[in-house]
Amino acid sequence: MINLEKTKIILASQSPRRSELMKQAGYEFEIIASTIEEKITQTKPNLVVEELSLQKADNVLNMILKSIDLSLMAFDDLSLMIIGADTVVSKNGNIMVKPKDRENAYEMIHSIQGQTHQVYTGVTIIIYDFNTREKSYKTFSECTNVTLYPMTHSEITHYISTSDCYDKAGGYGIQGEFAVYVKEINGDYNNVVGLPLARLYQEIKNFKE
Amino acid sequence: MINLEKTKIILASQSPRRSELMKQAGYEFEIIASTIEEKITQTKPNLVVEELSLQKADNVLNMILKSIDLSLMAFDDLSLMIIGADTVVSKNGNIMVKPKDRENAYEMIHSIQGQTHQVYTGVTIIIYDFNTREKSYKTFSECTNVTLYPMTHSEITHYISTSDCYDKAGGYGIQGEFAVYVKEINGDYNNVVGLPLARLYQEIKNFKE
Repeated sequence: MINLEKTKIILASQSPRRSELMKQAGYEFEIIASTIEEKITQTKPNLVVEELSLQKADNVLNMILKSIDLSLMAFDDLSLMIIGADTVVSKNGNIMVKPKDRENAYEMIHSIQGQTHQVYTGVTIIIYDFNTREKSYKTFSECTNVTLYPMTHSEITHYISTSDCYDKAGGYGIQGEFAVYVKEINGDYNNVVGLPLARLYQEIKNFKE
Repeated sequence: MINLEKTKIILASQSPRRSELMKQAGYEFEIIASTIEEKITQTKPNLVVEELSLQKADNVLNMILKSIDLSLMAFDDLSLMIIGADTVVSKNGNIMVKPKDRENAYEMIHSIQGQTHQVYTGVTIIIYDFNTREKSYKTFSECTNVTLYPMTHSEITHYISTSDCYDKAGGYGIQGEFAVYVKEINGDYNNVVGLPLARLYQEIKNFKE
């Protein structure tokens, strides 16, 4: 089991929602957003979010290792834990990322209203041990089914006018005003917000170095 | 359909979480908490929360009507909408309300960890028309299944030491640190927080006076 007191946690994401969730769980961490150009080679949504979460976490670890001279440092068993995450919405096999513009947001919401879609979040945890200079990886993903009430044209138009939709996969944020259209979910709620907090906690707890 | 612009909304609850959810949905409202001593005559959890939500909403309406002299007022079609709500946790037919003390909170959480339990929230909407002096009622409830990861003795002890448990049915708040133990839910997330926001929105939208 990993000793969290000797581990510095880095969240490799600039999403304010992921940061809020990490705080909610009680973790102390710093944020270093990845600068990588994401490359998707997979087609299934669970594999897409897993590979993107890995790219983000790996990129941030490499940035950190480049910026410090390991030979000059005494780390006293200090480890680094990098957490990368990526979220997409999926409907009938079509993957939706963040909408490009208002029309695109309208199309996305119109295509998922009144029905059930899936939200996938992939997470990669990398542990880097400064003493042994070894890396350990764990990648996983969670899927949550989200069922929406039917929405009228004016409800969709009103929602996209709030600008709540633009930086979110699928064009909606479940934690905002959009909640009034969410009939039920099946799975982890926070996975829809952007980070499967319970699974992450369990994986960190059980992480074998 | 009810004209919300001519309706004053009163939330008959002093729960800060219900108030937050009403704001999240975009409603403008005032809070008047009921002062009634709640009387449970039902045994099934869905009927218990429905009857308590009705008692709370009815109590607040009566307080308001007693405090104003209707014969002196010109209301111009103004209506009043009172929203009452009550939440319980249920496990194998046992209903859990708010824990009395630390031991009680420990017992509750210990009895639901590692398993699935139900959260019921009952809601009553009363519309009072000042012109016709007529009341319309709508009472409903929603059930959400909540599945928890197994929790160790020290995890339960740590959680109840945060005091997050005391004013919440079942001894936990899903929107706080406890989220790391919530494996999955099936139903409306906000119903577990204390108000089934999506169902409430739909019921208000479809309310026939």
